[in-house]
Amino acid sequence: MKRSGEFHWISTYLAPLAGAGSFGLRDDAALMDVPTGKSVVVTQDAIASGIHFLPDTPLDLVARKALRVNISDIVAKAAVPHSYSMALGVPDIWQDKDIASFASGLAGDQEQYGIQLTGGDIYRSPDRLCIAVTMFAMIDPAHYKSRLGANDGDVIMVTGTIGDAALGLKLATGELQADSKSTDYLVNAYHLPDPPVATAALAAIAQYSTASMDISDGLVGDCRKLCVASNVSAVIDRSSIPLSDAAALLVSDDDRLWTTICTGGDDYQVLCTLPASDKTEFQRMCASDNVMATHVGCIKDATSGSVSLDIAGKWVSIEDDSFSHF
Amino acid sequence: MKRSGEFHWISTYLAPLAGAGSFGLRDDAALMDVPTGKSVVVTQDAIASGIHFLPDTPLDLVARKALRVNISDIVAKAAVPHSYSMALGVPDIWQDKDIASFASGLAGDQEQYGIQLTGGDIYRSPDRLCIAVTMFAMIDPAHYKSRLGANDGDVIMVTGTIGDAALGLKLATGELQADSKSTDYLVNAYHLPDPPVATAALAAIAQYSTASMDISDGLVGDCRKLCVASNVSAVIDRSSIPLSDAAALLVSDDDRLWTTICTGGDDYQVLCTLPASDKTEFQRMCASDNVMATHVGCIKDATSGSVSLDIAGKWVSIEDDSFSHF
Repeated sequence: MKRSGEFHWISTYLAPLAGAGSFGLRDDAALMDVPTGKSVVVTQDAIASGIHFLPDTPLDLVARKALRVNISDIVAKAAVPHSYSMALGVPDIWQDKDIASFASGLAGDQEQYGIQLTGGDIYRSPDRLCIAVTMFAMIDPAHYKSRLGANDGDVIMVTGTIGDAALGLKLATGELQADSKSTDYLVNAYHLPDPPVATAALAAIAQYSTASMDISDGLVGDCRKLCVASNVSAVIDRSSIPLSDAAALLVSDDDRLWTTICTGGDDYQVLCTLPASDKTEFQRMCASDNVMATHVGCIKDATSGSVSLDIAGKWVSIEDDSFSHF
Repeated sequence: MKRSGEFHWISTYLAPLAGAGSFGLRDDAALMDVPTGKSVVVTQDAIASGIHFLPDTPLDLVARKALRVNISDIVAKAAVPHSYSMALGVPDIWQDKDIASFASGLAGDQEQYGIQLTGGDIYRSPDRLCIAVTMFAMIDPAHYKSRLGANDGDVIMVTGTIGDAALGLKLATGELQADSKSTDYLVNAYHLPDPPVATAALAAIAQYSTASMDISDGLVGDCRKLCVASNVSAVIDRSSIPLSDAAALLVSDDDRLWTTICTGGDDYQVLCTLPASDKTEFQRMCASDNVMATHVGCIKDATSGSVSLDIAGKWVSIEDDSFSHF
């Protein structure tokens, strides 16, 4: 067992990840240049062992998930991830090989997403790995997409497929069984979110969406948050929710698993609203960059914050609709 | 016992703290405007129960400490704290009254320092309160002070008094005894750092310092970090280290307690270097805004990163010199 000190870990494993303005992690702070006319998008999500990921998850995947749950928020604002700061709470059982594995995951995603580490903190978190990432993007503030602008009659669109990660968590914990190919696919979706960073998809969100957010706590619950913020309501057509082949095979017409799909969370796809007349062009732009965008419902100018599921023509109101990591 | 949900806590206790660009905490991210010609100083420090503060510390003080350990980093960069994002890991025992107390501490320091909350995350941290704050400042990048510029012959200056918090921790845990007045003063210094945010002190650091950092892990160890970053060495005259009356009374000529003073950490004062010819004006500017600045040593162009303590004319090299929260 080998565990070097904090400063060795920073200089050996983290300093190679440091980008512009970080002083090679040798300073107390970073200096972030912002181009004239741009504002900074700031988001911060933390993940903790046993809460947001299973304790036996390979550490390179944990590192990637810590980044991607934040990349997902940035993308949903129609912005391109730029850099991040990280507070890393290290459990007492970690050895050098563990920080090495964790850093390799960061390095992989830094390359994949073109982002860099600006700084942060390493501290002792005796019993539980905990990672708080603060992520930054530079954006023309006129292009920022909040949750607050959905209008009566807008269509509700989602990117990618929904429910894979929630099913994957049930498979990983043994609560559900499936064939090994489906299990691999869905468990991987739980471990490794895949937010839609494609350039054309971001351009489509920036150009057409009236409100946008990522789906982290479940499609229905997050849609409700968007509705509350925009002071509207929504109906989601359950049969139109896009499923992966693996999820479709598993769910079939099992109402309990449909609830998992709709409320389980960890999707890290974009949920956005746009005028119905822009739907086709929005879908075409997304598809041009290999992002599937699906029309799953519509916005109603009704009681604020109510979300109904249309299940085969019957409207079902969902109350306990959101996964809480809290 | 009452514990409302995450979203109630955000809207009731945290949303009133939210500033410009935060969308009242109703969005996934914040939008931070940066004036033309300014860059953003970014720093992130986390504190966890039982590691950085005692588990029975009143929660309003914990909140203030979480902010002040970051304010300290910003101030040491000669910048004025602007805003912060916070990832709050909430233990299972927290009730509504606990988040209320914590939020009241945030509110108090927001008013004292003129800062605002931009966003963040609340999540479950079952057994241990953990707060990761990312703090921002806007600065003309030419005025940013890193650790990297100390020169041979520079004097080493510190603000305020050193060692109070480290003695306070020993008093709070019963490892040390003192009269009640001294105990109150020193324990309070541990709970509630008081970084030197005074305008004239910041101007003096910006104008004269060649390198600057805050003292969080101990005077000697942090001075070593500055020396390593600047590729120089240092001698600190132990007898010139500024002590509060309470600390001076307690320490007297006890070498063991002098080690606590020099290496205990949690000072959250500024350590900076400057040309000897600027010392008087630096001290005058600081004093004009009620910040005491003391000359405690000097920079030598010798073996990189070595720090010696001059104790009554005898140079003592300190090896295990830095408190680790890790």
